[in-house]
Amino acid sequence: MSARAIGVIRTAPSDSLPQRLAELQQELRALIAELRPDVVAVERIFFQNNVRTAMSVGQASGIAMAEAVAAGCEVVQYSPNEVKLAVTGDGAADKQQVQMMVQRLLGLAAPPRPADAADAAALALCHLAHAPVQARIAAASAGARP
Amino acid sequence: MSARAIGVIRTAPSDSLPQRLAELQQELRALIAELRPDVVAVERIFFQNNVRTAMSVGQASGIAMAEAVAAGCEVVQYSPNEVKLAVTGDGAADKQQVQMMVQRLLGLAAPPRPADAADAAALALCHLAHAPVQARIAAASAGARP
Repeated sequence: MSARAIGVIRTAPSDSLPQRLAELQQELRALIAELRPDVVAVERIFFQNNVRTAMSVGQASGIAMAEAVAAGCEVVQYSPNEVKLAVTGDGAADKQQVQMMVQRLLGLAAPPRPADAADAAALALCHLAHAPVQARIAAASAGARP
Repeated sequence: MSARAIGVIRTAPSDSLPQRLAELQQELRALIAELRPDVVAVERIFFQNNVRTAMSVGQASGIAMAEAVAAGCEVVQYSPNEVKLAVTGDGAADKQQVQMMVQRLLGLAAPPRPADAADAAALALCHLAHAPVQARIAAASAGARP
């Protein structure tokens, strides 16, 4: 992961929702073409937390997953609790603990800003922790078949 | 609207969610390229009804809106109640009433099947009812400016 990859895509709040989603799609496509990731990790969203913003977050996540698959990337999803557990060892860690661990694990001078960028980095770190186990399970399953 | 436009896009339930979203994106893009609509109407979704499926519906709608804008279409959104009111005159109409009115208004021998296709046609009819009023409001607003 390069430092270049830690950041957020912003769209103008004054634009209409469809325009903002189209812009997000375009920016994501350009970012995927530039960084050529093998895997794209997307947060698994639940509704109980914030019903008001859940719909637009869902719309954005749908676009992210479709763009990633279209570009040939593997897509993985982790819940916020899985991310917190993987990064801090505590599934109920608060935002500050996550930010501190992201800074430490990536050897950064300061936590990534804004907080959403730290969350994205934590999601990537969660996958890096899970990937070797998943690969071993897949290999074992393949080996077990005749 | 041609009869060709009344239908649904299906993806395999056995595929992963990211794969299904990517397939939906591809099919929608091909459909928009083929039909070249001026306007794409997307149902405005609310959560209180069905929290379990709301997330995937939101993900799909986000993709639809982004694809429509990317293809240069205007995107409009109507709530289920607005659609029922426009098509049947009753914002609390049941599915059967909506299907019957769609059949009548489009002069079809039978209601579109599956029911989701009738809902899509009702959404388009709702926009056809609203569009002249919206155009007059826009024209009046433009005329009122110096």
